[in-house]
Parts: sequence; structure tokens; C-alpha cells
Amino acid sequence: MSDRIEIFEVGPRDGLQNERQILSTADKLALIEGLNASGLTKIEAGAFVRSDRVPQMADSESLHSRLKANGFRGDAYYLVPNMNGLERAVSVGVKQIAVFTAVSDSFNRKNIGMSVRESLSLIREMTESARREGIRVRGYVSTVFGCPFEGRITAHQALPVIEELLSLPVEQVSIGDTIGVASALGVEEVIKPLVSGGSVPGIAVHFHDTRGTALANALRAFQLGVRTFDSSIGGLGGCPFAPGASGNLATEDLVYFFKEMKVETGVDYQSLCETSLSLLGKMQGRIPSSRALQAYQANCEKNSVWDS
Amino acid sequence: MSDRIEIFEVGPRDGLQNERQILSTADKLALIEGLNASGLTKIEAGAFVRSDRVPQMADSESLHSRLKANGFRGDAYYLVPNMNGLERAVSVGVKQIAVFTAVSDSFNRKNIGMSVRESLSLIREMTESARREGIRVRGYVSTVFGCPFEGRITAHQALPVIEELLSLPVEQVSIGDTIGVASALGVEEVIKPLVSGGSVPGIAVHFHDTRGTALANALRAFQLGVRTFDSSIGGLGGCPFAPGASGNLATEDLVYFFKEMKVETGVDYQSLCETSLSLLGKMQGRIPSSRALQAYQANCEKNSVWDS
Repeated sequence: MSDRIEIFEVGPRDGLQNERQILSTADKLALIEGLNASGLTKIEAGAFVRSDRVPQMADSESLHSRLKANGFRGDAYYLVPNMNGLERAVSVGVKQIAVFTAVSDSFNRKNIGMSVRESLSLIREMTESARREGIRVRGYVSTVFGCPFEGRITAHQALPVIEELLSLPVEQVSIGDTIGVASALGVEEVIKPLVSGGSVPGIAVHFHDTRGTALANALRAFQLGVRTFDSSIGGLGGCPFAPGASGNLATEDLVYFFKEMKVETGVDYQSLCETSLSLLGKMQGRIPSSRALQAYQANCEKNSVWDS
Repeated sequence: MSDRIEIFEVGPRDGLQNERQILSTADKLALIEGLNASGLTKIEAGAFVRSDRVPQMADSESLHSRLKANGFRGDAYYLVPNMNGLERAVSVGVKQIAVFTAVSDSFNRKNIGMSVRESLSLIREMTESARREGIRVRGYVSTVFGCPFEGRITAHQALPVIEELLSLPVEQVSIGDTIGVASALGVEEVIKPLVSGGSVPGIAVHFHDTRGTALANALRAFQLGVRTFDSSIGGLGGCPFAPGASGNLATEDLVYFFKEMKVETGVDYQSLCETSLSLLGKMQGRIPSSRALQAYQANCEKNSVWDS
């Protein structure tokens, strides 16, 4: 097995969008550039969504313009829910977008007001427009393992949606455990058929650590051949429900985990932790949900041995 | 692979010994009986150590007498550091003890004032005495993956100590990641040679979740054939360094994890969570470090679907 993985950083969008505090554009720029300096190259930076509904992302146009002006060397992705969002992205020269659907209709309707089938048609249209503009498209599928409204989701339900998205001109499909209920067994049930079908190079996994299982799920996905993992700096976002509780898998936990597995991530762990601490310093009362970062911060147990 | 595991519950001893607050004997009894009622049969209940140094365990004689008087149906284990501790255990009719050593001399000297070699001689003597008394013995090896004083520990260093302990009349040896630095790769390096050597039925693993890797390590150990896992109710103990930070792997996380893997643990998850919440209610300011319990407690995302 290849001993190199790629981490897709979702903190500045998926993370910050789900935090109460709104970061300034300058703070976001510092964060994104800090993440890139630590070795992360693919970063979800913002979203072209309605600013009255998602004020955290209202500055995505100016953010992208400033990233370009600063000579940003990474790939900045922007979430785009519809053709209007795509037009906004095009207007400021965005080169990578992310589109999304879900396995469960109830979630999709609450999230974007349309059925899964309707959203797949829309995505088909968006990917065609994006291709004409020379824009790369990443696809997300939410609620692959469970839905907050419909309960458990089976691989039998999830695979057709994933496969349909894979059949469109997208560079990658990210398989999302939106509410953190995936198990290593569930991961196997979804990933194995995709491996047999030859789809794995185009697959990423997006785990939430709500019940502490994200790294075990990442291990299982890695063993099955997955080589792209989504995560969020500081564990930001993903609807944590208590101080210290976890939503999104923290990038620090993921990088620490693979570093100790001797799998190359391209990320400098100390630099990443310092970027995270600097960010969390700007977010009042935000307790880091990353256990690796907590250990790094406590400088316990001769951290230098494990953290360098 | 067998789809049944056994969980060895260490909370009432390893957990409570490392908590500031001292629980009353009555509270400990309620805890131990609650754990047993939820399906846990092997429970580390106390320790025959110096009560001036470890006041949390000062009531182990009366605790055991009361457990017996109540007709406790589980196997209560007591940590015993020396012949004096063994005599105290015998005097109240204890039937299971735990003995311990470490891979690293520095840790062992700080912990019990003797070298690893000296402690192995003492353990040999204790196991022989215990056998004459009809007492079963469990052995612990600490610092298998890393030592707070010596840094990284290799499998090459750890295996001779584990193998020597396995050669004594012990029913099981528990392999301890004392400071939570094991990786899935490190687990493989230690467990694989033991599997080849035929030792696995006598092996347990004892992971700490300090850096969030405990369940991934448990998955790797399970894949390699290990079927006994140590954990601590509520994640008690294991030297957490911040509110919400984690030391010992929480029993709730472990039970949730295997339940979702469709591996039988014999434990009722809801009953376990209720026992844990009842315990934590008695411990002022103790934030549960178990992520599964946090999710259970928040009753988020239609918990009933996943927690029943």
C-alpha cells in the first residue's frame, strides 16, 4: 500500500460556517495561509451561499480576491449550492468548487430545499458549466451512514447516490458521515464495493468524531485503499453540542495519527498545531476538540518525543 | 474471526485512583454493582496499596467484604504491589489479583521503587503464593509503547518483558499504553509476534485515549486477534491534563464502538451509560471524557437509533 495520503482541509468553510463567532477576512486569510504553510494544499476556503443565512461566509468574494493578490499557492475550494453561486465563484476567478448532495431526501430538503434526485440534476448542470469555465469540481455526499431525520442509512441506499455523483465530471467524491455514526464495519460496507468498482482514486472520506470513532474509521478506510481524508483544523464545526465535544474530525488528530503510522501527509505537525492554537486564541471560549492538540498544548509526557 | 470480545473494566481502581475526589465505599459499591448489572463481569475493584500514598484505595478490605456480603456475581480484581498486599487480599478472601511491571526501568522505579528485573522476580514469587491460595493472577505491563521519562519504547524492548510475564502462572497479560502514544503500527509491531508465538488468548490491551487514537488501536488489535480490552467507565483516570481531556479509554466508547461493529461485548450500552451518568453526578465538576457518552447525554441526532 502507498504510504502517502492527502488531507483535504475543510476548517475555513465547513468548520467556521458552523461556529457562532464570525472571523474577520484578515483572520481567515491568516488561517488559510498558515494551514498552507504547514503543508496543506487543498483547502475549502469559503462558500457562495446566501449571506443572510450564512453570515460566516459572506466575505468569500473578497477573501478569494485577497488570497489571489497575496499569491496563494494552494488550491482554494468554495462551496457552491446552485448556478447563482457558481456565477459568483466565476466572477472572482475561483478555480475549484465543491458541490453537494445527500443520501437522504429529508436531510437534503432541510439543507437545500430539494430532493436528492433534483440536486443530482442540478449538480450535473453545474459540473457541465464548471467544465466550460475550466473549474475543477469536488462532490460531497452527506448522510452516507446515518441521517438526523431518517436514522440509519445502509450501503445499499448510499452507493447509488455516490456512484451517480462519480459518473459526473467531478475530480473526487467525498463520502460524509455527517452526524458521526459510521463504524469500521459500515465504512467497509460502503468502501469495498467502490474499491471493486475501481472508484477509489476518486474517493475521499469525511468523518465526524461525535462518538470518538473517526480515527478508527479512517484506519479502516486507509486499509481498504482510500488515500484522501477530509478534516477540520481544531475540529471546528460539525455541530458539536457541548464544550470539548467533537464534530468534524480535527486535522491535528488526523495528522498525528498518520505521522505515527509512518504515512506521509506532507503536513508539518508542529506548524499545524501552532496554526491551530493561533486560530483558537482568536475564538473566545472555544475549547479545542482535538485530543492530539490538547496533549500538544499541555506539553505533557515529554511532548517533543511524539510531536516533533 | 470470533465476533465476541471481553471488556475488563478498570474504572473503580485504575480510574478512581487517579481522580482527586475520593468516593465513599457505598458509592463504589453502587458503581461496581451497576457495572456488573450492565454486563461487565471482570472488574478491577480496588488495590491493596499504602493508604497514606493512595487514599482513594484505603477501603479495599471493607469494599471486598461488602461485595461478598451482597453476593456479588462478577470477578472482582485487586491490584497488589507486593507480598504484604497479597496477604491483605488473602485475609479478606479475594480470589483475583492483578500484579504489574513496566518495560522501562525509570517508570518502574518511580512507580514502585524497583527495576523491571526486580519486579519480575517479585511477581514470580507472588504468582506462586497466589497459586497456593487458589487466587487467579492478571499481569500488567506498563509503558509498552512509550515512557514519560524514556520516550519511545520499541517492540524489541517491550516483547521480552511481556513474554517473561506470560511465562509465569498468570491468566492474562494486559499490554499497557500508559501515556497514550501507541499507534496502529506500534500495536501491530507488538501484537504480531505474540500472535505468531500463540500467546494471544492470554493477551489483553489497555489503551489510553490521550491523543484520540485508542479506538483505532483497539481496531488494529482486534483485527490481529486480541479479544480482551481494558477500559475505564467515564474515561476515569489515566492522568488527563485538562477538563474534557482523556486518559483511560472510556468503557462507553469501547462498548459503542464494538456494538456498531456488530461484535458482542455482553454489555448493555444504555445501562452502561446510565451507570456512568450516575457516577459522574457524584463527582463534582468531572466532565465525561467519553465522546460516546457526551453524544448519549446530549441526546443528539435521535440517539435512540444508535444508542439502543
